[in-house]
Amino acid sequence: MPYFDTASSAPLHPVARQALLAALDEGWADPARLYREGRRARLLLDAAREAAADAVGCRPDELIFTPSGTRAVHLGVSGAAAARRRAGRRVVVSAVEHSSVLHAADRFAMTEVPVDRLGRVSAAAFAGALRGDGSGPAGEGTALACLQSANHETGTEQPVAEVAGVCREAGVPLLVDAAQSLAWGPVDGGWSLLAASAHKWGGPAGVGLLAVRKGVRFAPQEPADERESGRSAGFENLPAIVAAAASLRAVRAEAAGEAAGLRALVDRIRTRVPELVPDVEVVGDPVRRLPHIVTFSCLYVDGESLLHELDRAGFSVSSGSSCTSSTLTPSHVLRAMGVLSEGNVRVSLPLGTAAAEVDRFLAVLPGLVSTVRARIGAPDAEAPAGAAGSGGSRVLDTLGRRCPIPVIELAKLLPRVPVGATITVLSDDEAARLDIPAWCEMRGQEYAGEHEAERGTAYLVRRVS
Amino acid sequence: MPYFDTASSAPLHPVARQALLAALDEGWADPARLYREGRRARLLLDAAREAAADAVGCRPDELIFTPSGTRAVHLGVSGAAAARRRAGRRVVVSAVEHSSVLHAADRFAMTEVPVDRLGRVSAAAFAGALRGDGSGPAGEGTALACLQSANHETGTEQPVAEVAGVCREAGVPLLVDAAQSLAWGPVDGGWSLLAASAHKWGGPAGVGLLAVRKGVRFAPQEPADERESGRSAGFENLPAIVAAAASLRAVRAEAAGEAAGLRALVDRIRTRVPELVPDVEVVGDPVRRLPHIVTFSCLYVDGESLLHELDRAGFSVSSGSSCTSSTLTPSHVLRAMGVLSEGNVRVSLPLGTAAAEVDRFLAVLPGLVSTVRARIGAPDAEAPAGAAGSGGSRVLDTLGRRCPIPVIELAKLLPRVPVGATITVLSDDEAARLDIPAWCEMRGQEYAGEHEAERGTAYLVRRVS
Repeated sequence: MPYFDTASSAPLHPVARQALLAALDEGWADPARLYREGRRARLLLDAAREAAADAVGCRPDELIFTPSGTRAVHLGVSGAAAARRRAGRRVVVSAVEHSSVLHAADRFAMTEVPVDRLGRVSAAAFAGALRGDGSGPAGEGTALACLQSANHETGTEQPVAEVAGVCREAGVPLLVDAAQSLAWGPVDGGWSLLAASAHKWGGPAGVGLLAVRKGVRFAPQEPADERESGRSAGFENLPAIVAAAASLRAVRAEAAGEAAGLRALVDRIRTRVPELVPDVEVVGDPVRRLPHIVTFSCLYVDGESLLHELDRAGFSVSSGSSCTSSTLTPSHVLRAMGVLSEGNVRVSLPLGTAAAEVDRFLAVLPGLVSTVRARIGAPDAEAPAGAAGSGGSRVLDTLGRRCPIPVIELAKLLPRVPVGATITVLSDDEAARLDIPAWCEMRGQEYAGEHEAERGTAYLVRRVS
Repeated sequence: MPYFDTASSAPLHPVARQALLAALDEGWADPARLYREGRRARLLLDAAREAAADAVGCRPDELIFTPSGTRAVHLGVSGAAAARRRAGRRVVVSAVEHSSVLHAADRFAMTEVPVDRLGRVSAAAFAGALRGDGSGPAGEGTALACLQSANHETGTEQPVAEVAGVCREAGVPLLVDAAQSLAWGPVDGGWSLLAASAHKWGGPAGVGLLAVRKGVRFAPQEPADERESGRSAGFENLPAIVAAAASLRAVRAEAAGEAAGLRALVDRIRTRVPELVPDVEVVGDPVRRLPHIVTFSCLYVDGESLLHELDRAGFSVSSGSSCTSSTLTPSHVLRAMGVLSEGNVRVSLPLGTAAAEVDRFLAVLPGLVSTVRARIGAPDAEAPAGAAGSGGSRVLDTLGRRCPIPVIELAKLLPRVPVGATITVLSDDEAARLDIPAWCEMRGQEYAGEHEAERGTAYLVRRVS
């Protein structure tokens, strides 16, 4: 039963399990105590810190353990931004950061740097945002910049070293969210802070790490506590910390070989899915990407139904479609990239994935997509766009209908209006804002803008072929 | 090798170990995901929440898991106090709360309710503090009250139900820190919030719990996150949560039998230590107390040295003496009680402690105390207080000397001054503020007050017998 969602949480690495078991017996006492059980716990904690720092590429006294990657990000953003309060309140982030970064930055004055259609920021745009150009609050100095090493939905790698360079020139510290990439190698470039999460690399839940380079100003914002240099409160989760450090070392040892194998499998998915399934958009950078993640979206598909079908077929994947989100909004990553969100599937392969599993995925996917499309009444992909139909400009009322229905109705109507005619799609579904322009791009039709309507939003589509 | 510091951290309960192992295999996936691994994780999380809520005495939807007891306290205090910002900023706490409570409350306007010599608050004093009588900021309304169910250093139980009554009358929510007592039973009385920590009851590190009763206003103060009802950010530490819930259930099943056995052993320590060791003060409530904790202090003893000797003899205990603290201040609990802090030893017995272990502790303790006293040059306990010596009032300069030296020098000088004479002890050691008055009380001499001196503090002692 292939589990293809390792970017959410990876199964426990055998080395992590072994280290955890040993540390349960040796490392349950308080490492701050002077008696033998405490001293033993302290030794384990120190050794884990050294191993993790070595993997991160920092000094042991620059690294603390936190209860999760989310906490590492929250503590890192608040501590670094608050310490530079005098410089200003602006926190510059890429528009495709993990929600933990966005929510932490949003407590300050957040400026989002846009990404291109592959999901990548440019160092020049970042430099502009540091200066206060663009969308952020005017006149506000920049306290902190945040950039992921690679994206959690698309695998696209960011130009961290370049952005670190422009941050250094601007005198702004850079926090790197390395949650998705740390298993594969250290993050290059002159970052100031780095956050990561152990359960993403096969370590146990309950462990994040935060590195703060010496010389980077840092002011903890939470109630005083003596643990972890006063930067992360609460009794250390020592057995899990030991397991996290051991498994990080283990996955690093396997990284080169695994990366080559997984990269080839992801390339196969990237190539074959559009060949096997009509009306699919594979998103993200095809080259500058993590080895194990690939994301694609299927027109006229309800993401939740496709996930259920894949689950029944034995494949566990996730989705950035609005119907799979509790807020009924599509993934902010797909939105920032301006790509299709309907029928979205993220595949993230665990270490040791067999080619046969990927082949089986490719074998079942087309049938499952067809099933979901047929059930929802999608237009026939084989049908020609057709001769000009009757009538001129038309209004298509899809109010109250959820993704992918508005796009399906649009696709059905378009062949029935003359070339040159405009269809005004009324929709109150957040996904439409992303998916109607994306559909136009895929179909070679003109997207002529949107405006607020009496109810919902009016999206204008002009038939051009 | 007896480990007698279970109040710091308890060894992992066998049930916790077993549950943790099972959940490592079944519960590593994201419980928010829809595929089978996620659904399995969700079932485990729901079951753990039901078991924990049952043990706490609340509804499952009133309980969240946090990464530690400290985090449960921090989140509980900030969420409850911030939600009542309009009522005022005062947070009323007992003076003997755990440091996590004091540090969280200190971010608001903290008022400490004093305790008696047994370490117990009175409901009347609490009621006064809620109204704003006493030491707190004048004119400030009360947002929240915090009271531990039992003290972590002395085991003294607090009158939680009574205090909950006065809180309800005042319309102020009460947060109970139940970290030390939850293993023994639910907390009675109409509390509003309750916090606890799994590694205190034999669960794994990395799990705290916070219950917030329905109807209690609560405003999370941290960056938005969907986990745990939006009240505790970060990926759930599911295997540890499962183990925590299972072990809470297990220790509760054993609680009645264990309590009787440990209570008898602690009674033996309370009775025998003062018989076996001269100049010892056993502190805390002898009756209204937790079964497993006892604290005593030894005159003329350096706490750190005694801990080392006990460690070498195979006993792991902790201490509230200033010399065992990184800040060189004695425990705030002992200070609030006004009892001796030098040579302080806390014994907290784990489940299943054998009587023979306690007997061996009682057998080695007197010799170790004698050794430490001899090494430091303590006055001979057998020597008579002596006839009147030469000279009248005297100044004893102990500036720069650390606990227990100032008290030792005082004890040596006193027999050499006439009855009625005053000794002015100059000291810059924080422990002296507590230990000189405590020594006077133990020796039946008059403590005549203190005042600031050119360097340090002058403590006035009058010989009365």
